[in-house]
Amino acid sequence: MYEGVVQDLIDELGHLPNIGPKSAQRIAFHLLQADPADVRRLAEVLIRAKEQVRFCAVCFNVAEQQECKICRDPRRDPSSLCVVEESKDVVAVEKTREFRGRYHVLGGAISPIDGVGPDDLRVKELLKRLADGVITEVILATDPNLEGEATATYLARLIKPLGLRVTRLASGLPVGGDLEYADEVTLGRAFEGRRQLDV
Amino acid sequence: MYEGVVQDLIDELGHLPNIGPKSAQRIAFHLLQADPADVRRLAEVLIRAKEQVRFCAVCFNVAEQQECKICRDPRRDPSSLCVVEESKDVVAVEKTREFRGRYHVLGGAISPIDGVGPDDLRVKELLKRLADGVITEVILATDPNLEGEATATYLARLIKPLGLRVTRLASGLPVGGDLEYADEVTLGRAFEGRRQLDV
Repeated sequence: MYEGVVQDLIDELGHLPNIGPKSAQRIAFHLLQADPADVRRLAEVLIRAKEQVRFCAVCFNVAEQQECKICRDPRRDPSSLCVVEESKDVVAVEKTREFRGRYHVLGGAISPIDGVGPDDLRVKELLKRLADGVITEVILATDPNLEGEATATYLARLIKPLGLRVTRLASGLPVGGDLEYADEVTLGRAFEGRRQLDV
Repeated sequence: MYEGVVQDLIDELGHLPNIGPKSAQRIAFHLLQADPADVRRLAEVLIRAKEQVRFCAVCFNVAEQQECKICRDPRRDPSSLCVVEESKDVVAVEKTREFRGRYHVLGGAISPIDGVGPDDLRVKELLKRLADGVITEVILATDPNLEGEATATYLARLIKPLGLRVTRLASGLPVGGDLEYADEVTLGRAFEGRRQLDV
């Protein structure tokens, strides 16, 4: 509908995840009316990110060096390994300040419907790390959905025979949530995982 | 939370309209894992769009030349002028194939709350065009919301004394919509604008 490069811009923006045609159009017009310096900065950071960012050779988190900043940090406990699906999950766990161990980023979850099997994830690399004799606990922090649960079950079966402690994050009611609005699966899990109050 | 350029990328994406921090993160990781050629193409189209796209000297629609393709088209009726807020509204009207005249893009709507007054819009330029003696009808196609209505009323008062026909797009029920889900203002307008059925 637009002339040449305007349409090209809308098309390219529309290829981004969660950007529909209307959003792509809105962003395109925002950029066309924006300060040229702002647009140039965005274009440059795209190129620079693509050039500079790689994936940590140890844990596959995003990194700007051979190893990511968590793997490089000697204060992190090497005996505890938290397995997550994506780099953004590393950030989510880091924000809690509850975990001082290291990570392993799988690169997704097992999902037959999307054609993602264990060989498409960094499972071999995980098993290789677990063979180092230093790691004693593996926390399976994949998403609490169908794919994440399947992945955790699959990994637990592989790891248990190695004699390591394998744990899974607790499922239950979100803090600050309302009991009546909890879905039944979550509420069921919350019952299942109920803890004794020692008062 | 991320290392250097990853965070820069998320920050830059987060400045785009309707992109929250979560979306910015999702898009950033999508791009980091995408084909480098795709990312380069996006960066290039940003730069190119910014360099090549200007605004039509006549109607202020987006254009790649001095005048936009509609203003350059001799088959368009020069006597009918459709006044819209933004270039994307031109596309919306064009898609209907109902209008064969020309456009005038105001660049927004009067909105005291956002500090946008008539002087911030291309009103002077509109009045100059209307003085050419060729235009006989002005269709005020600003948005059917508070700001758009205020802008249309303001423009109508300016244009009426020039002896031109000034019209406004009909308000009413959306085609394919459900009467019970229509808001009361829309339903009220639909009653107001009811037409006799000649059967």
